[in-house]
Amino acid sequence: MVNVGIYGATGRVGKLLIEDLGPEETLKLSAVYVRNSLEASLPEGTLVTNDVEAFVAASDIIIDFSLPEAAQPLLETLLKTPKPLVSGTTGLNVHQLNLLKELSGVAPVLYATNMSLGVALLNKLVNLASKTLDGFDIEIVEMHHRHKKDAPSGTALTLAESAAAGRELDLDKVRVSGRNGNIGERTGDEIAVMALRGGDIVGRHTVGFYNDGEFIELNHTATSRNTFSKGAIRAAKWLHTQPSGLYSIADCLGL
Amino acid sequence: MVNVGIYGATGRVGKLLIEDLGPEETLKLSAVYVRNSLEASLPEGTLVTNDVEAFVAASDIIIDFSLPEAAQPLLETLLKTPKPLVSGTTGLNVHQLNLLKELSGVAPVLYATNMSLGVALLNKLVNLASKTLDGFDIEIVEMHHRHKKDAPSGTALTLAESAAAGRELDLDKVRVSGRNGNIGERTGDEIAVMALRGGDIVGRHTVGFYNDGEFIELNHTATSRNTFSKGAIRAAKWLHTQPSGLYSIADCLGL
Amino acid sequence: MVNVGIYGATGRVGKLLIEDLGPEETLKLSAVYVRNSLEASLPEGTLVTNDVEAFVAASDIIIDFSLPEAAQPLLETLLKTPKPLVSGTTGLNVHQLNLLKELSGVAPVLYATNMSLGVALLNKLVNLASKTLDGFDIEIVEMHHRHKKDAPSGTALTLAESAAAGRELDLDKVRVSGRNGNIGERTGDEIAVMALRGGDIVGRHTVGFYNDGEFIELNHTATSRNTFSKGAIRAAKWLHTQPSGLYSIADCLGL
Amino acid sequence: MVNVGIYGATGRVGKLLIEDLGPEETLKLSAVYVRNSLEASLPEGTLVTNDVEAFVAASDIIIDFSLPEAAQPLLETLLKTPKPLVSGTTGLNVHQLNLLKELSGVAPVLYATNMSLGVALLNKLVNLASKTLDGFDIEIVEMHHRHKKDAPSGTALTLAESAAAGRELDLDKVRVSGRNGNIGERTGDEIAVMALRGGDIVGRHTVGFYNDGEFIELNHTATSRNTFSKGAIRAAKWLHTQPSGLYSIADCLGL
Repeated sequence: MVNVGIYGATGRVGKLLIEDLGPEETLKLSAVYVRNSLEASLPEGTLVTNDVEAFVAASDIIIDFSLPEAAQPLLETLLKTPKPLVSGTTGLNVHQLNLLKELSGVAPVLYATNMSLGVALLNKLVNLASKTLDGFDIEIVEMHHRHKKDAPSGTALTLAESAAAGRELDLDKVRVSGRNGNIGERTGDEIAVMALRGGDIVGRHTVGFYNDGEFIELNHTATSRNTFSKGAIRAAKWLHTQPSGLYSIADCLGL
Repeated sequence: MVNVGIYGATGRVGKLLIEDLGPEETLKLSAVYVRNSLEASLPEGTLVTNDVEAFVAASDIIIDFSLPEAAQPLLETLLKTPKPLVSGTTGLNVHQLNLLKELSGVAPVLYATNMSLGVALLNKLVNLASKTLDGFDIEIVEMHHRHKKDAPSGTALTLAESAAAGRELDLDKVRVSGRNGNIGERTGDEIAVMALRGGDIVGRHTVGFYNDGEFIELNHTATSRNTFSKGAIRAAKWLHTQPSGLYSIADCLGL
Repeated sequence: MVNVGIYGATGRVGKLLIEDLGPEETLKLSAVYVRNSLEASLPEGTLVTNDVEAFVAASDIIIDFSLPEAAQPLLETLLKTPKPLVSGTTGLNVHQLNLLKELSGVAPVLYATNMSLGVALLNKLVNLASKTLDGFDIEIVEMHHRHKKDAPSGTALTLAESAAAGRELDLDKVRVSGRNGNIGERTGDEIAVMALRGGDIVGRHTVGFYNDGEFIELNHTATSRNTFSKGAIRAAKWLHTQPSGLYSIADCLGL
Repeated sequence: MVNVGIYGATGRVGKLLIEDLGPEETLKLSAVYVRNSLEASLPEGTLVTNDVEAFVAASDIIIDFSLPEAAQPLLETLLKTPKPLVSGTTGLNVHQLNLLKELSGVAPVLYATNMSLGVALLNKLVNLASKTLDGFDIEIVEMHHRHKKDAPSGTALTLAESAAAGRELDLDKVRVSGRNGNIGERTGDEIAVMALRGGDIVGRHTVGFYNDGEFIELNHTATSRNTFSKGAIRAAKWLHTQPSGLYSIADCLGL
């Protein structure tokens, strides 16, 4: 049985991780790090602490879905007492990313801003299609709930990068985020990334490749937020037997 | 048998009209107006002329898919010798639109910038959904081939008007044509009209209504350009028995 | 403040009703009927009882999402002391449906096997499209999660009825549920209702109308099971001011 | 300039090949084989013949879209005087397939029942997704025009084979072509291949992978029949520089 510590246990994904670890047969929740208090039903014997060193000591592997400023002391502690780390914390600054890389020299580290298995696969498929379907026009549409404040989504930008990489294009130069007025004919290289907002859509991404006579559309839809916690748990099961190094979800899927 | 005259016979839709009139049992091509010459196989006895008065005299009903400057002399002639008119000419100026209205005082006139039956129905459905689904967010996506020079399509704007009218909104104030950066949460009234371009897509329009727990998406797809000529022919069959007046495709469909 | 009694409070929708009534300003949970016990956090003063008469006495309006055998004693009690009833219980037999009709002579009753506002609207749109798009082929696809045991869904069958009614067809004679082998050309009247199963899809229904040159596809997607409880609550707010009669969600929406 | 001979020139794809070869810069139509007569405008100097040997002699590479009984004498002649062959003829029997294999020992031969580049890529993506997304439910939907007589399409069955191969399943044992009645919960291995028919849809295929929390849908849509002729021409340009061997469109795309 592998002891799992959850860092960022009071966050949205943290709570789902506690739930989704329940039925796992080879993983066991051993410790949660919380700054203050936590309302959740935990298995007997789980350590609840705001002491990072005690938290790390009680865990064989750590899953972190916190905030950048909270992730930093965790990374510093792990550099002293290395343990495998699955991190889904977004918005890390350059210094924090360097700590992560340094840690990957002494422990296996998997870092992903989207833990969904399906999105990792989609990036692979988009890259392959972009290379193969030379001359097809690429258009991306993403949709999220009405409360999302930024556009386009980080996942849509990553998909656009995967498409651009397949043709050795610089995304910054070819990305389009809206069309209005007398815009003229479409250029071959442009990649539109259009953002729709509405309702409670968890996340929907479609990458299309269009040519005379045929087109291909590759779609990923998240139907619940559990996608992220389930992806992190699958990643943890795979990571704890890997050698030191920096990994992605694609590595975990063998893509 | 009703004699049909085609004005604008050398245009893209004009050519399809000649083809699509072939199998009709109650309509017969009697005259085509062309400025210069026309390459097409016409039924025996068809009048080919650049004399507007002779053209009108040889027709029981006229279908016009020409350009604004060509449509004007046709309208002026029809005001002298009224005949039913189906007009799909886009871009008419205020004076030309007034001539059209004047003609509708003495003859039945059907004017539509999109002759598709499906699009006319979709406008009706969108208006009904917009009224009924109070509080649902509205987002529109249109897609056309890579050669289209303006965005969004006229049809998408008409659909957006139908949606706005259902909620008594002023489209100019609520229309969004792109999203990029830290845009904040979606406001309840905004209506996005996003334009995709690529391949040889004839025309695809989707109007979505999104709420917590559910959404509805209403889609129309044109699979060939014949949609316009077939819609015009259906309109002509209906129009020639109507009293004087200005009609739309929705009237023809009994919507 | 209108006092709402929930009958079938331990069921899946019953639990969501308790949650979703919380933020309502004009409705208040006053009583729940449970056969045995109930694990839920209820507002102070809520009557929890297995006595149908006491339950009815404590309610101004009743929402019932139970089973046919449980609904019968409720209907019998309401016939003695009439109160408005919103019923979403499926599988009622002829006798139970007759009790429901009898009750609607003395109290307002809304009965619906799918409480979603969007699905009610979709039925209306499908009926209108079926009538208007004479000659278009109709195909329906529904998708639900892998645990659903019957096919096609009741909602898909109701949509197919709405389509068939638009053309005065008998659904039993024209419905197709699969295609395999040398089936020959499609006949104009057939209506396919195809069932997909997979993952955790809450419910997705698409009704398509296909012709030469164009097609229309009308889609409804449920993104969470709350759709039903929210629809029932909206129905209750509307119903309690109506005169006696048997109503549908379409009536509540003014369709 | 490579001289191309078209065998089956009076067929639907044959006629498109004549058109689509027009603008090619490195290929030139040199000969067409027709049993009787052909109505088409051909480039000056094109050999029109019903003599197979003369036809083969006048061609550097041959594209065959004929019928099995016509393809056989072509294969027999090519075995005597080998030339590169692109064959899209469907329904070959075992003897004819053996002739094709024999020919591939002495000349490059590309055989494909669907010449679309996009479909070839989709098969690759489906196989990869099927392997990677272990535990996801697989459902396939295809749609074609109302005149198609068999179901499901050959392309849908090939996609289903690609999916089954990714999991080492025997398609014959797991394929489902319809669902109706009390069918019980979905089994993990089944692969539904559902056929829709209507309008003038050229060909639309969607392969979906569904799990708790997320799903992926991969779609290919043909927008015109030119897809096949354009794919065959691209294949011909690639094939004529290859060594002897039996190739697929996937080989031509480097997949």
